[in-house]
Amino acid sequence: MDTEHLSRIERLQGAMAAEGIDAAFLYTPVNRLYFTGLETSNGLLLVERQGTPIFYTDFRYLEVAHRLLTGVEIRKFKPAKEQLADYAAMGKSWGTVGYEGSLTVAQYLPLQEALSHAKMASVTSLVSAIRGVKSPREIDAIRRSAAANDALLADLLETFRPGMSELEMLRHFRMAEAARGLVESFDPILCAGANAVECHHQPDATVLQPNSELLIDMGVKVDGYCSDMTRTLFYGIPTPRFNEIFDIVLEANQAVAAAVKPGLRCCDLDKLSRDIIGKYGYADYYDHSLGHSVGLEIHEMPGFSKTCDTVLKPGMVITDEPGIYIPGQVGVRIEDLLVVTETGCEILSHTPHRLVLPC
Amino acid sequence: MDTEHLSRIERLQGAMAAEGIDAAFLYTPVNRLYFTGLETSNGLLLVERQGTPIFYTDFRYLEVAHRLLTGVEIRKFKPAKEQLADYAAMGKSWGTVGYEGSLTVAQYLPLQEALSHAKMASVTSLVSAIRGVKSPREIDAIRRSAAANDALLADLLETFRPGMSELEMLRHFRMAEAARGLVESFDPILCAGANAVECHHQPDATVLQPNSELLIDMGVKVDGYCSDMTRTLFYGIPTPRFNEIFDIVLEANQAVAAAVKPGLRCCDLDKLSRDIIGKYGYADYYDHSLGHSVGLEIHEMPGFSKTCDTVLKPGMVITDEPGIYIPGQVGVRIEDLLVVTETGCEILSHTPHRLVLPC
Repeated sequence: MDTEHLSRIERLQGAMAAEGIDAAFLYTPVNRLYFTGLETSNGLLLVERQGTPIFYTDFRYLEVAHRLLTGVEIRKFKPAKEQLADYAAMGKSWGTVGYEGSLTVAQYLPLQEALSHAKMASVTSLVSAIRGVKSPREIDAIRRSAAANDALLADLLETFRPGMSELEMLRHFRMAEAARGLVESFDPILCAGANAVECHHQPDATVLQPNSELLIDMGVKVDGYCSDMTRTLFYGIPTPRFNEIFDIVLEANQAVAAAVKPGLRCCDLDKLSRDIIGKYGYADYYDHSLGHSVGLEIHEMPGFSKTCDTVLKPGMVITDEPGIYIPGQVGVRIEDLLVVTETGCEILSHTPHRLVLPC
Repeated sequence: MDTEHLSRIERLQGAMAAEGIDAAFLYTPVNRLYFTGLETSNGLLLVERQGTPIFYTDFRYLEVAHRLLTGVEIRKFKPAKEQLADYAAMGKSWGTVGYEGSLTVAQYLPLQEALSHAKMASVTSLVSAIRGVKSPREIDAIRRSAAANDALLADLLETFRPGMSELEMLRHFRMAEAARGLVESFDPILCAGANAVECHHQPDATVLQPNSELLIDMGVKVDGYCSDMTRTLFYGIPTPRFNEIFDIVLEANQAVAAAVKPGLRCCDLDKLSRDIIGKYGYADYYDHSLGHSVGLEIHEMPGFSKTCDTVLKPGMVITDEPGIYIPGQVGVRIEDLLVVTETGCEILSHTPHRLVLPC
């Protein structure tokens, strides 16, 4: 393991000490990846407040774990009952045991029973707070991911045209992605015409018509890090109604990008976007949060939501994606990925916002 | 909703009645997809023992839910506290409430608290038993998925050759997959040479050498249904050691396929494969189960494992994938997907087992 991963574990141990957590059970693949750099479908990173963490896995990953995870003790999982008995024996002195909120009940309940003398405490917020502030290496990966996403969309704009169905466009998306050696960070959203009002529409046989809109919400992964961007294109001559809604959404998107800086609360930026859209009378048609953090996962904490009072710090990477969706008429979302800097933010999405294409 | 999905819900309600479960909370996307046919990232299917199920979702999916889910009541999720209060009000008469073992702790604990008067019972086995026996329509989708997987591998055999790295082969895999309009059911496993002994190796820069083996474990999805197949190829002239191990693994694979029929226990078939490999002295190098069910998910229940005493029924779709992995030397796994029939099984994987290719 390199120093970056070891320092992440040290930050975790520091946070555990501050919150009085004696041992943390990290089962989910993404947390194990974040803290060790090793991606496996099966494993447990058991971190005590002090000392060397233990990485448990099954026979499939023992070899790679021994090769890559220096500084961590590697053990093979025993059959379930013996394994739980081991936790009980190790944990006699543990007062508080940390678990992930994303753990499944089927994993949690036996653990809770084996450690019934201890208090169980969620480490979700604690881990999210650590993962929420990205290191320079992580930001670099996300920057390259956003650039790859821009380049992929540029490819697609050469291919997409009225007459194609959403499913045909999806096929082109996946061919272009594979040709570039990329994997997507989520199933791309491709909404032709009025489908854009379903803001998480699944691609279907709907054909893109001339003089209509196309909403594309897409992201890829580079070195494990996600990107995320939405553009609402128009093929042909935009209607006045489309232009009106587009301009309002863009105003909200730009106002947020101009305002973001360390020290502000996430909810204040959500409110800023909501106030702008509300000023034009469309508050009821903007029924989602302004944005979410992005990292190893496509949705991370903190997020620009009504209820998130997390204070922005340099290194947070968040989406700025206001939208207005008027059923049966028009749907517009504009989404950029940005990283909070010491003085404001750097926008990582470089595709132009206003894209009007010939039909 | 069509009659197939309505009948799945009726089977669930019947099983709930038999086990004394008054209401089942189905949060996970795959179970909601199985019982309704609608795929959404957010939702809850709340099924009482009798009457019309309720589908909760957020604003993003209300439109599509209203359009597709006839026979189910559609409601919009309220803010968390109000939503939980609704469950408490609805559930006054519930004695036992069913939850999914795959539910996250963060979802489970508030639910348990809101319904603290009731007993919580896992519905995982009950739902798995229903999902474990595939309908003719599901088997047809899996058959087409396996055929698409065979065709994809045939494409790849035209492309893969010594001198390519695992990562280059992965890129070709994804281009061929996208060109065919397919999505994979799991990250393909491509192991060149000695990497085959790590049976779930991640593709890396290792270059396929002449006169060496290539293990490919791959699957795609068709109409949402997964396929899964493993072949261990040899480029050049197989070594006697490779042939020895290959023949033993193939003998185990074929013996299982010949033996499968309704009425046998899953564990007996696992034992059959283990006895054959053990007879040649390689029991210690076969450290995984014989197979797993496949359906909407790549790993479903029941599985061919030492501990699974589920009795085979017609319609179960399971992998037959014995393997031998000798560190530093040779790794061979041969995996077919099969469906249990009234009298035996139908093998759905049609790629030849023994593939020796020129270098």
